[in-house]
Amino acid sequence: MKIAILGGTGDVGQGLALRFCFDTNHEVVIGSREADRARRMAEEYETELGSRGLERTVTGRRNEAAVTDADVVILAIPPDHVVDVLDTIGSHLQAEAIVVTPVVRMTRREGGFSNDPPAAGSMAAVVAESVPDSNPVVGAFHTLSADRLANLDLTFDLDTLVFGDDDDAKDIVAGLANEIEGLRALDAGPLASAPEVEALTPLVVTLAMHGAGHDIGVKFG
Amino acid sequence: MKIAILGGTGDVGQGLALRFCFDTNHEVVIGSREADRARRMAEEYETELGSRGLERTVTGRRNEAAVTDADVVILAIPPDHVVDVLDTIGSHLQAEAIVVTPVVRMTRREGGFSNDPPAAGSMAAVVAESVPDSNPVVGAFHTLSADRLANLDLTFDLDTLVFGDDDDAKDIVAGLANEIEGLRALDAGPLASAPEVEALTPLVVTLAMHGAGHDIGVKFG
Repeated sequence: MKIAILGGTGDVGQGLALRFCFDTNHEVVIGSREADRARRMAEEYETELGSRGLERTVTGRRNEAAVTDADVVILAIPPDHVVDVLDTIGSHLQAEAIVVTPVVRMTRREGGFSNDPPAAGSMAAVVAESVPDSNPVVGAFHTLSADRLANLDLTFDLDTLVFGDDDDAKDIVAGLANEIEGLRALDAGPLASAPEVEALTPLVVTLAMHGAGHDIGVKFG
Repeated sequence: MKIAILGGTGDVGQGLALRFCFDTNHEVVIGSREADRARRMAEEYETELGSRGLERTVTGRRNEAAVTDADVVILAIPPDHVVDVLDTIGSHLQAEAIVVTPVVRMTRREGGFSNDPPAAGSMAAVVAESVPDSNPVVGAFHTLSADRLANLDLTFDLDTLVFGDDDDAKDIVAGLANEIEGLRALDAGPLASAPEVEALTPLVVTLAMHGAGHDIGVKFG
C-alpha cells in the first residue's frame, strides 16, 4: 500500500513516517507545501532508518504530487491548513483514496488545553466537507505523542481510535495502525464520534501538563 | 472521613459505595430522595459485604439527612436531577464539604453516544453554579463502569481523572480514589477541564458498543 503523509515534515508526520517505515513494508511518501523541504526530510528519515540497519526509500514531494497514486493520505497538518491543503490536493487524489485525519483544533487556556472545534463540529467534519465525495474520510492517530513515535528506541502499548462512515476504509486504516508495533486500533464508530475523539487530544496534553507524564497516550480496557 | 453518596441506590452509586466500603475504612452514607429506598439499599450493601466476611455499617438516608455531616458528597445522580438535588441539599451541606461530580450528560445517536453538555458548558459547571460558594466542586469517577465497580470479584487497573479549582479539595478526592484498589487518580487540572473529561464517558460507551469490551475504562500512560 502507498501511504502519503502530508505535513510529513512536521512532528506527527515524522513520527508516523518513521514508524510506518520501521514496522511495515508499505511505501511512504512525505508531502509538504515545498518539494525541497519534503525531499530533505525524506532523506533525513532514510538516514535515521539506515542508522538502524534499515534500507528504506522515503520519497519527498510537493503535496499534490505526493497524493497522486497514494492509497491512503494522512493529514498530519495543523487545523488551520486543512481546507487549503485539501483544496490543493482534491483533484489529484485517486478516486477512492482514503483520507485520514488525526487533526484536532485546540486552544490553550488557564491550566490546560480545551478542544476548540470549528463550526462544523469537528475537524473530521471539515475534512469530510472538503474532499471529493468518492474519498472516504477516516479519523485515526489523534492521541499519539510525536516524540514517542519518532524515537524508534521507545516502545509503547497504546490505543488509537478509528472512526468513519465507510467500514471498508476504516478496516484498512485500522489494519495499518495495528501494523505499528505496540499500537492497537479500536473502532470508535462513525464520523459522528469525531467530537469526543478529538476532545481526547487536549485532555491528554492537559494531563501531561499536570504530571501524568510528558508523552502519554491512552489505552482502553 | 464521611462520604455521602447521593443516588447511592443507582448503579454507579452502588458501585462506589461497595468499593469504598470494601477497600477503605471511610464511613459511607447512601442518600436517596426516598429514605426507605436508601435504607433498603444500604442493607443490601451490608449483606453483600457481609457475604465477603466484612462487617460494615452502611447508613441509608434521605439526601438532606445524608449530607448533614458528610465531608465529601458524591453526586451519583442523573444529569437532569442535579439542580433539584443541589437545591434540596444546599442548606444542609457542611460549610466546606466537597461536592464531587461524576455526572455526564450524553445523548444516544446513530452508532454511539455524544457528549451533550448543558448551556453552562459542562455538568461540572452546573454543579459549581448550584452549590454554595464555600463548597469546593471536584470532578471524578466519570468513566468507571458501574457493573465493574459493583462486582467485588473483579479487579481492574484504571485511571480516574480528577479536576477542580480547589487544590486541597482535589487532593482529598484524589486520595479517596487512590484508596480504591486498582484505581489511580490523575490530575486533570481546573474545573475548565470538565468538557473534555465529561466527553470521555460517551466515548467509552461508544467504544464498548463497537466491540472494545462491555465494561471498559481508561488508562493513560
